[in-house]
Amino acid sequence: MTGRLAVVGLGPGSLEQRTPEATARLADATDLVGYATYLAMVEPRPGQRVHASDNRKEAARARHAIGLAADGGDVVVVSSGDPGVFAMATAVIEALQAMGSPVPLTIVPGITAATAAAAALGAPLGHDFAVISLSDVLKPWPVVERRLEAAASADFVLAFYNPISKHRPWQLGRALEIVGRHRCASTPAALARGVGRPGATLMIGPLGDVDPADVDMSTVVIIGSSTTRHFTDALGHAWMYTPRTYPELPSS
Amino acid sequence: MTGRLAVVGLGPGSLEQRTPEATARLADATDLVGYATYLAMVEPRPGQRVHASDNRKEAARARHAIGLAADGGDVVVVSSGDPGVFAMATAVIEALQAMGSPVPLTIVPGITAATAAAAALGAPLGHDFAVISLSDVLKPWPVVERRLEAAASADFVLAFYNPISKHRPWQLGRALEIVGRHRCASTPAALARGVGRPGATLMIGPLGDVDPADVDMSTVVIIGSSTTRHFTDALGHAWMYTPRTYPELPSS
Repeated sequence: MTGRLAVVGLGPGSLEQRTPEATARLADATDLVGYATYLAMVEPRPGQRVHASDNRKEAARARHAIGLAADGGDVVVVSSGDPGVFAMATAVIEALQAMGSPVPLTIVPGITAATAAAAALGAPLGHDFAVISLSDVLKPWPVVERRLEAAASADFVLAFYNPISKHRPWQLGRALEIVGRHRCASTPAALARGVGRPGATLMIGPLGDVDPADVDMSTVVIIGSSTTRHFTDALGHAWMYTPRTYPELPSS
Repeated sequence: MTGRLAVVGLGPGSLEQRTPEATARLADATDLVGYATYLAMVEPRPGQRVHASDNRKEAARARHAIGLAADGGDVVVVSSGDPGVFAMATAVIEALQAMGSPVPLTIVPGITAATAAAAALGAPLGHDFAVISLSDVLKPWPVVERRLEAAASADFVLAFYNPISKHRPWQLGRALEIVGRHRCASTPAALARGVGRPGATLMIGPLGDVDPADVDMSTVVIIGSSTTRHFTDALGHAWMYTPRTYPELPSS
């Protein structure tokens, strides 16, 4: 008998920010499949089989999960944040198309890192925004540059995923350089690291001061538009937000 | 004594997709403030004061909520989806800055409509994407056009919020026209209406067939990039997804 398969978004990390739908699917599962770091965010119940794999082997992990479900398992592929944003949903759907297996699949959404970070910072994504992965492992770097150029020139707020890694040390600096051609150095920017997990850190400061040395793979980088503001409230809390109102264009 | 204030994201609609953090904050509140349509998504407990207002009066609603918290209330401003994405968080933070009130504020994230819709459709946001509100109530229409042009030309997947209303009947058609200059008519596109609520509908089809008559204010419109695909699986379920892998640029 065929089982079923879900790709489940764990959200940012804490149980308080994980949906009941995700929690229920995890509890029901006979098999949990995923990157070891994300599986560590889940407390397996007795009897549940846990299949940990390396982060880079997404296609193999997806096929493995489909195979387990085809054999009758109640299988969950775990994903941090939202599974549809630079995460496992795409790999699983692609494998399902390739394999043609009659496995019922569900994608269970979660709170993605950009909106979790935005909530911790205030509301920097309160206006039109673009979400870009700075990883050039799966796409050519010129595509990233073209998108940075387009989004920066059209004054989108920007959220960067996968901003830096040991093997990709220079991409963030180059991205900041491109954005810096279109935004003042005083534009509010933020580094939100490990939001929703113990030891999370938030930094809000001017774009010109962003230092790639303060950024790691668990950091979301948010760069404001020309209208984004920041201030410290009466209780000493720093906020960054983008007004929903955008000024009239200067007449040309 | 000062109370406290939270802007809470209800998520798409169903309780299964609302976080425990949001549910707890709603349960603790003495006062619920919001647009009547969103307040109707919450079951108030006995003794809770409910302050419903018109959708357009965001600034007044924000000031009212801050005043209630300054007077000692445990106040929740409710927002559908995520409060930071075209919703109430910005209005509340802006009012807090203007009023200077010593009120402790928390933004509680929720699953935003674009990622909820994406999960229901598959994984169309699996690669770089841009989120644009088509409403020109708070920003000049030329700003929207510039952003559509930029994001479409750089091959971002696009998610449109506020695509159409009684008072904004032509903007979606115009947006489709701009995007259509950069994408084939066969590019997969989707209309996701009321995802997470009873009576939700999903349509996946070619960009060239998108008809604004099928779209309302509760619809998220998602337009694929040049790499977005769709297919029907062995069980007859339609999926739309954007691969994480992007091809090499043609050599010029």
